[in-house]
Amino acid sequence: MKKSLLALAALTAFAGVASAQSSVTLFGIVDLGLRNTKNGSTSLKTMSQDGIASSRLGFRGVEDLGGGLRAGFWIEGAINPDVGTSAGQTWQRRSTVSLMGNFGELRLGRDYTPSFWNHTVFDPFGTNGVGAQTNLQTQLGQTSMFGAGATTLVRANNSIGYFLPAMGGLYGQAMVAHSDGSPNGNGYKGLRIGFAGGPVNVAFGYGQTEITPTNDQTGMNLGASFKMGNFTLFGQWHKYEVDVPANTDQTNLMIGGALAMGAGTLKFSYGKASSDATSREATQLAVGYVHDLSKRTSLYGTFAKISNEAGARFAVSGAPAFGGTDNKPSSSGYEVGLRHAF
Amino acid sequence: MKKSLLALAALTAFAGVASAQSSVTLFGIVDLGLRNTKNGSTSLKTMSQDGIASSRLGFRGVEDLGGGLRAGFWIEGAINPDVGTSAGQTWQRRSTVSLMGNFGELRLGRDYTPSFWNHTVFDPFGTNGVGAQTNLQTQLGQTSMFGAGATTLVRANNSIGYFLPAMGGLYGQAMVAHSDGSPNGNGYKGLRIGFAGGPVNVAFGYGQTEITPTNDQTGMNLGASFKMGNFTLFGQWHKYEVDVPANTDQTNLMIGGALAMGAGTLKFSYGKASSDATSREATQLAVGYVHDLSKRTSLYGTFAKISNEAGARFAVSGAPAFGGTDNKPSSSGYEVGLRHAF
Amino acid sequence: MKKSLLALAALTAFAGVASAQSSVTLFGIVDLGLRNTKNGSTSLKTMSQDGIASSRLGFRGVEDLGGGLRAGFWIEGAINPDVGTSAGQTWQRRSTVSLMGNFGELRLGRDYTPSFWNHTVFDPFGTNGVGAQTNLQTQLGQTSMFGAGATTLVRANNSIGYFLPAMGGLYGQAMVAHSDGSPNGNGYKGLRIGFAGGPVNVAFGYGQTEITPTNDQTGMNLGASFKMGNFTLFGQWHKYEVDVPANTDQTNLMIGGALAMGAGTLKFSYGKASSDATSREATQLAVGYVHDLSKRTSLYGTFAKISNEAGARFAVSGAPAFGGTDNKPSSSGYEVGLRHAF
Repeated sequence: MKKSLLALAALTAFAGVASAQSSVTLFGIVDLGLRNTKNGSTSLKTMSQDGIASSRLGFRGVEDLGGGLRAGFWIEGAINPDVGTSAGQTWQRRSTVSLMGNFGELRLGRDYTPSFWNHTVFDPFGTNGVGAQTNLQTQLGQTSMFGAGATTLVRANNSIGYFLPAMGGLYGQAMVAHSDGSPNGNGYKGLRIGFAGGPVNVAFGYGQTEITPTNDQTGMNLGASFKMGNFTLFGQWHKYEVDVPANTDQTNLMIGGALAMGAGTLKFSYGKASSDATSREATQLAVGYVHDLSKRTSLYGTFAKISNEAGARFAVSGAPAFGGTDNKPSSSGYEVGLRHAF
Repeated sequence: MKKSLLALAALTAFAGVASAQSSVTLFGIVDLGLRNTKNGSTSLKTMSQDGIASSRLGFRGVEDLGGGLRAGFWIEGAINPDVGTSAGQTWQRRSTVSLMGNFGELRLGRDYTPSFWNHTVFDPFGTNGVGAQTNLQTQLGQTSMFGAGATTLVRANNSIGYFLPAMGGLYGQAMVAHSDGSPNGNGYKGLRIGFAGGPVNVAFGYGQTEITPTNDQTGMNLGASFKMGNFTLFGQWHKYEVDVPANTDQTNLMIGGALAMGAGTLKFSYGKASSDATSREATQLAVGYVHDLSKRTSLYGTFAKISNEAGARFAVSGAPAFGGTDNKPSSSGYEVGLRHAF
Repeated sequence: MKKSLLALAALTAFAGVASAQSSVTLFGIVDLGLRNTKNGSTSLKTMSQDGIASSRLGFRGVEDLGGGLRAGFWIEGAINPDVGTSAGQTWQRRSTVSLMGNFGELRLGRDYTPSFWNHTVFDPFGTNGVGAQTNLQTQLGQTSMFGAGATTLVRANNSIGYFLPAMGGLYGQAMVAHSDGSPNGNGYKGLRIGFAGGPVNVAFGYGQTEITPTNDQTGMNLGASFKMGNFTLFGQWHKYEVDVPANTDQTNLMIGGALAMGAGTLKFSYGKASSDATSREATQLAVGYVHDLSKRTSLYGTFAKISNEAGARFAVSGAPAFGGTDNKPSSSGYEVGLRHAF
């Protein structure tokens, strides 16, 4: 999703830009589908979006400053093509400015947190659609994972990030995000360190968010993938905790796989959420198929089912409020769609 | 308005896009003018916009998938250049993804309804400015035509559309739009079928919107144009109905013309709204002139006057609340402006 | 800030645009930094933005109409890259359409007021960051300068502007902005006339805003700069008045300078606000340094301190509410950042 798909061009004749290596890129994705979900006894048919990729529009660019130094910017917003709105903040997916060189990359602005990446990199379904493993992270009707205000599970505002330069297969990211005066669930520090080489990719992530001066939320995770011919095996482990209420935690485990078959990919995952507390136990099974019409355009279908233990209310993406009186309701959904990137 | 005016380019050297036929296009319109309107005894001078075209910014593209198959996207939003805001939803004018081939086009997302098109295609004033025939559709101060919540008079969210391929002069569109769980004035089904050949263009449209489970709004219309040398004759007929309150309907008729004179076009229209109920009768006379400085840039002037029958409150675009105590108030307005497309 | 940095291209092969002189330009700035401010006894550390330039995204273009006539458009919005939002109106920085020729330029839409320009052109810090001289214009906690609703200190909606053509060093702008029916702090008329030649640039500006039918706000200003080798001297004088409450005025004076040193520029300014009324007296001292990594990318650092007289509450950009009980509190701040233009 981060490839440059269309360069607006380093048109030096028009631009008066010194370096031919400089460029600005317009990019985006429109992903629309039809979804049918069921929570307990309540079902819902919708036109859905973001079944396998998040719809977006962005602009980014790199300027060669000479001497191995580069400057870059990236502004990217979410779009809701099913109804034509922008989602929330306008460039909320990422808005950064960077200095890059042999030392690595220094990046300022709104960006993905280091503790987020393993969620999506090591999930055959990414973090999109009814099959996303993050369905087992925050329960339906809760604004954040522990009912508190941590807003950094995916991105953080006001962040200063550092990325390691290419060093063999080693990669890494560290981030500090300002709370800008009052702890509001956004003050964050975290890091991620990983290794990718040959068939192996493995990474560890950690993040800590100040919800109030006396309440931090921490997340720790490990993800890995292993490629065996046409089949890639995926695994994830996550542990989340808050200080208040005391000893509230949640542990998530996932195993999954993706089988490349010509222009198609068959995917599955099985995940489990557990906790020392009650009302946080559930399992999810997801299967999906993606058929590539080109590198930019795909047809897809996904099915997922969540089985909640007593009191838990995890749900597949886009599902309605739980109906019925079952204290262990299941949630399921399927969708078919068309994703096009530009 | 739908031509590609500037291609950002199929810069394959930068883009890594396989097909030279693929492209992304940035496009838009800025249309600003001065408007003077009068409703009964109240008059208003404003800077106006959209006098002959709706101001907008959009991005769209087509990818050649090989074998006659193409994928496409289109995201287009309204802008209000008089005050610098975006209007309502950000990409609300259209946000779609398409698969196209010999079979026609399958299109998903927010799009124009089939029952809308005849309003604009067969009106010499389009649906813009003080002279638009749609002034006789919804009365001043009403949020939708019958005081109910149909939001599909122009576009529908969550739509699945199908367009006929080129077949001689025959053209057609069918659409189903999801209500996404609750009838809210957006659940819609409709179709349009037309023929354009030689001097003739004629089309029939039909649309049905679920306002509540027991109240549908239907619209049926016929439009035609006939070209005779430099003069084009236009005609429209529309019939709208809601189930609740019972037997509430409205019928609109219009005749109009456009006379090409070198770089200029002289336009007029006369329209009439009538109903079995009271308070829905009015006539509108509109005259206008558009002077093209280029294909992209035009100066224009328009005058229109509406005569309301007892209780009706139709008004020209941008007019103020009706002043005075006249139960048959007239509404009039004129504007001059500059439209530039990019 | 108004240079064309990247032309999307006059790609006539794709565009079907007749004239090779026509172009559309995508442009923008991302400016992010770290800021530490102190108001009285309260201090605040933040990630800041717009330290030396306002972050933005825009599209603009010029079309050659032949015969010396050109049409142009400009839509430009603010972005907040520290948190990923757009600021206020989406294209609120400027949204205009123009006709240009030997007669000058006629411009319609939302644009900068003539009475604004001297604020930024003749301030070595522009109107950005902790050192901007406009810090001494409107006090902390007030929505506009005199507690009334003039919204035209920088830009006006619904404006008709005229710009003189190039005539030796003479330049000028006149503007009338519609209140669109009710005086709301936006109805405006103003003009600016200046001369730039050799080392000298000097301009006079005037603007009058209708806040209510019986209350106008007027602003009058004079700005000048003089270049002596690597050093440029800057001076500004401003006088603001409102009719209600009677005789409320404020006068601002500034002297400043910028010293070019290779790739760096050292800047300072000293300003003073005074008034016939109390609670409007303060001084500001600002020093800064900008290091250019290229024409598009700069590192910068700025420090500024405001000393308020009794009752005045002027504050540096981004500072928190005043703490403590001092009736003459000072406000200070420093910031370091990275500005990248595209």
